[in-house]
Amino acid sequence: MPSTFRHAALVGKYQASGMRHLLEDIAHFLVRQGLEVTLDEDTALNTGITGFASLPAHRLGSECDLAVAVGGDGTMLGLARTLARANIPLIGINQGRLGFITDITLHEHEAALAPMLRGDYEEERRTMLEGGVWRDGAPIFEAFALNDVVVSRGASASMVELKVDIGGQFVSNIRADGLIVASPTGSTAYSLSAGGPILHPAVASWVMVPIAPHDLSNRPIVLPDSGEIRVEIVSGREVSASFDMHSLASLLKADTVVVRRAPYQARFLHPRGWSYFATLRRKLHWNAGGAPAPGP
Amino acid sequence: MPSTFRHAALVGKYQASGMRHLLEDIAHFLVRQGLEVTLDEDTALNTGITGFASLPAHRLGSECDLAVAVGGDGTMLGLARTLARANIPLIGINQGRLGFITDITLHEHEAALAPMLRGDYEEERRTMLEGGVWRDGAPIFEAFALNDVVVSRGASASMVELKVDIGGQFVSNIRADGLIVASPTGSTAYSLSAGGPILHPAVASWVMVPIAPHDLSNRPIVLPDSGEIRVEIVSGREVSASFDMHSLASLLKADTVVVRRAPYQARFLHPRGWSYFATLRRKLHWNAGGAPAPGP
Amino acid sequence: MPSTFRHAALVGKYQASGMRHLLEDIAHFLVRQGLEVTLDEDTALNTGITGFASLPAHRLGSECDLAVAVGGDGTMLGLARTLARANIPLIGINQGRLGFITDITLHEHEAALAPMLRGDYEEERRTMLEGGVWRDGAPIFEAFALNDVVVSRGASASMVELKVDIGGQFVSNIRADGLIVASPTGSTAYSLSAGGPILHPAVASWVMVPIAPHDLSNRPIVLPDSGEIRVEIVSGREVSASFDMHSLASLLKADTVVVRRAPYQARFLHPRGWSYFATLRRKLHWNAGGAPAPGP
Amino acid sequence: MPSTFRHAALVGKYQASGMRHLLEDIAHFLVRQGLEVTLDEDTALNTGITGFASLPAHRLGSECDLAVAVGGDGTMLGLARTLARANIPLIGINQGRLGFITDITLHEHEAALAPMLRGDYEEERRTMLEGGVWRDGAPIFEAFALNDVVVSRGASASMVELKVDIGGQFVSNIRADGLIVASPTGSTAYSLSAGGPILHPAVASWVMVPIAPHDLSNRPIVLPDSGEIRVEIVSGREVSASFDMHSLASLLKADTVVVRRAPYQARFLHPRGWSYFATLRRKLHWNAGGAPAPGP
Repeated sequence: MPSTFRHAALVGKYQASGMRHLLEDIAHFLVRQGLEVTLDEDTALNTGITGFASLPAHRLGSECDLAVAVGGDGTMLGLARTLARANIPLIGINQGRLGFITDITLHEHEAALAPMLRGDYEEERRTMLEGGVWRDGAPIFEAFALNDVVVSRGASASMVELKVDIGGQFVSNIRADGLIVASPTGSTAYSLSAGGPILHPAVASWVMVPIAPHDLSNRPIVLPDSGEIRVEIVSGREVSASFDMHSLASLLKADTVVVRRAPYQARFLHPRGWSYFATLRRKLHWNAGGAPAPGP
Repeated sequence: MPSTFRHAALVGKYQASGMRHLLEDIAHFLVRQGLEVTLDEDTALNTGITGFASLPAHRLGSECDLAVAVGGDGTMLGLARTLARANIPLIGINQGRLGFITDITLHEHEAALAPMLRGDYEEERRTMLEGGVWRDGAPIFEAFALNDVVVSRGASASMVELKVDIGGQFVSNIRADGLIVASPTGSTAYSLSAGGPILHPAVASWVMVPIAPHDLSNRPIVLPDSGEIRVEIVSGREVSASFDMHSLASLLKADTVVVRRAPYQARFLHPRGWSYFATLRRKLHWNAGGAPAPGP
Repeated sequence: MPSTFRHAALVGKYQASGMRHLLEDIAHFLVRQGLEVTLDEDTALNTGITGFASLPAHRLGSECDLAVAVGGDGTMLGLARTLARANIPLIGINQGRLGFITDITLHEHEAALAPMLRGDYEEERRTMLEGGVWRDGAPIFEAFALNDVVVSRGASASMVELKVDIGGQFVSNIRADGLIVASPTGSTAYSLSAGGPILHPAVASWVMVPIAPHDLSNRPIVLPDSGEIRVEIVSGREVSASFDMHSLASLLKADTVVVRRAPYQARFLHPRGWSYFATLRRKLHWNAGGAPAPGP
Repeated sequence: MPSTFRHAALVGKYQASGMRHLLEDIAHFLVRQGLEVTLDEDTALNTGITGFASLPAHRLGSECDLAVAVGGDGTMLGLARTLARANIPLIGINQGRLGFITDITLHEHEAALAPMLRGDYEEERRTMLEGGVWRDGAPIFEAFALNDVVVSRGASASMVELKVDIGGQFVSNIRADGLIVASPTGSTAYSLSAGGPILHPAVASWVMVPIAPHDLSNRPIVLPDSGEIRVEIVSGREVSASFDMHSLASLLKADTVVVRRAPYQARFLHPRGWSYFATLRRKLHWNAGGAPAPGP
């Protein structure tokens, strides 16, 4: 049975040891399944792989109808951002421990990929955040994020004070180390460490989590993802805004960080039988035993 | 300009002192605005108010096209459950401190009600939970809830272990004092005390919050409100299920608490200019000052 | 080199499968090391072990100068309470996973015990709580606890309101599901699940942790263990007080739960090289990897 | 009756409006009570107050036997650090809202101070932290702190990884935004915002609170204040160490932040009848009503 897909982009976490050999294996496997393979140019250059076409990452989307990321969740998230507008599906192969979104292990990748390439997979769409920083009525920074947008104070500075609006409605002034606006995908990342809840990806929402808030009743709040969130810097030194890993530092008073749902979604393909909750249980060690014993 | 409404039901927290006089004032005011007024029978009997028609609470919905609750959030929630199927709008007048959903004070009730009766209001719909307890394949208890469904252990018992599914998918086994499934309305009640996030009412979701969970990584999880949640008692003594205030005690091993979105919604009318976030700020004392001082 | 100890009490979690054989092995080993061995009477009766002297648990303290508990943390805690006044040291052998205080595994018990019996061990003392419930000026219940004293509401009841004093000073009125007063030993048990901090055993303190408190700023508070804590029931139905596993249910309004430091300490013996922090790291899976990934 | 004290140092938060007039009032009042008054030199210069002796802050301790701070908790904390070695008692007069440690209001300062100057007061001692940053075997920064020592990442950087030891024992590797070591005094400041417990000042301890820790089980831990805490930078960019407000930025890998109990204590004088718990109740709005309503 022929592959559902025609042309795979292949991207690897090239800093990881053994990545060259691994990527070559996967590339040859994809070719054997009848796909054309184009390597991400940085991956090709840094691993020294030759014998395959390569393109800069931002051009992979226009040539390929599938992208395969080999590495960890970070590799997958980076690829999803790069290909956001291209609307092509992504498969993640994990080099180390299984991730939240990269759920195929090296050891089983051929057995897992073969049926997926023939169309037997589960597709899951994840919302993305887009926005930027506005100063004096004009944008000075624009970016995408799959996980979160974080506004935070500098290391040696004291609190930042932020004024938050959603959809034109005033929410609150927040004094804290910072503020996280996380997507469902990002809700299991930094947001969780800061005390946020887990958001199921099917809930069309963001969670806004203050980091070490001054007011103890300033709790995480889950907001519809349809309204534009505006976070204005009221006070604070060395304030920065980060969209996943892309940061703008040295924000000024009255600068405003704007966040809204992107018009694109990330499309993740999982092996048949994949379960969101099984991933949570594994990653968060639920039911693993060994937790503290409530009483004798 | 005539009233948009024809016939108001009037319900009061009759245990509160001064309620008789207050309800009479409101009833006369409603009559002056051109409405017919029918009292909740329990309210009439317990306050001794005469001179108005009265009906048992569950029959108010078929006669009236508006209901006015006087008391606190509890009075309003009780009325919303009683009239759930009737689909009539509710207005809440608060006898004491303003509540989360009763946002008209005694002192201003005439000025606030007059424009609302002429159709100048903001309507807000809140989802409701329904469900019950199943034993041996049959329901043994059924109820509605506007706030939350709580499964919890007995006072002198140790942990309960619960198996949770949503939409037929296994979520997790949870060992804890109990588990809360809260609506957006309930997210600012018990769920908040147990560590849950605030859910904006426009997010079509429940939050599932374990109470004092044994696994420290068992965090609140926000789920779509479209899937049926099933909570099975795996072990535990003196376990009970509560739908708002209605409880079934002495649940047995393998009993299952079922929770789904009710086909009805509560309809709350607010004065023009009402703001969900302003209510949060006021109730949670945000920006009130006086919080701990992070550093000198 | 002869044993430092003369006469060992041996207590087992007799419900566990394989316990008879295991206890016989340990008893014979102790005899070979030159110790007299007396079994806990319940352990002997329930396992059917014969050939050793046996005594009721509460009399073991007057005959023996060492006690060995085989089971889990619960077995060890129970033994520590029973022998509280006897001031004899305890060694815990864990049948399953290592516990917080039972840190010798079955597989290594002979190699671990041999040097300890010759005096090569680390001794650690843990404070105990004692107290009871007072009604109308007289005690109606008295008990010891090694972990915690918990005052809590009934399953189907709403909050309890408690008035807390320490050393005669008013602390606060607390509305919550309940209140935990935990020792350093108990701080890694139920208290941790309810949001309390870990207390190092060398800090002479209790931690008082409200369970699902109504006031969001009602945070855990660490108090000196020298002052008597009094928790008065202001309101609440089906309220109970538990000292570790010993409970008194149906407390009445104005009943007062009194907690103070016991004049005895539990004495735990650990193999040389034992580390409190290593136990924490292992039991709480610190540095285990696999936690949520903050950002890509 | 003559004053117990001979010579008062007077320090003010000179940036605050109306401070000149206020300080002059207090100074004259102190003179009328028979005390010599010396102004902090910065306070005198910035307010323009003349007619009193003045000295640089660090020399006040050798001349005076009492110090009076007028401002907020920050003013008091700064003065306590400056005079740490001098061992003289401090009185705090609050210009705005009452603080945690400044508990005399402007409106009542004469009535409150008069008996205190005659020796009728409650004295409370608070431990202080001292330490610094070590690089390549030598200290490169040394400071005092009354509240806390904070090691934290830069604004646009990802997590920091820290290796923590106490008294030569390895505690844990912590990956987080940062780590707070707070005194009982600091436990109601930044530490509380980051999820730490309240430490009663009579408990000889620090609390170590990770900020947004990667491992969800990395909970606050209360440690004896007798052991030296060493926090080594394992990885992280733009890491800084702050002792209250004094910071050293740009820490390098292997730099170690050392924290131990200072050999001095801050001595705070309070009006007779002062209560630590009353201060907590007032500052944290306990029992203030208006918190979320658990259930209808």
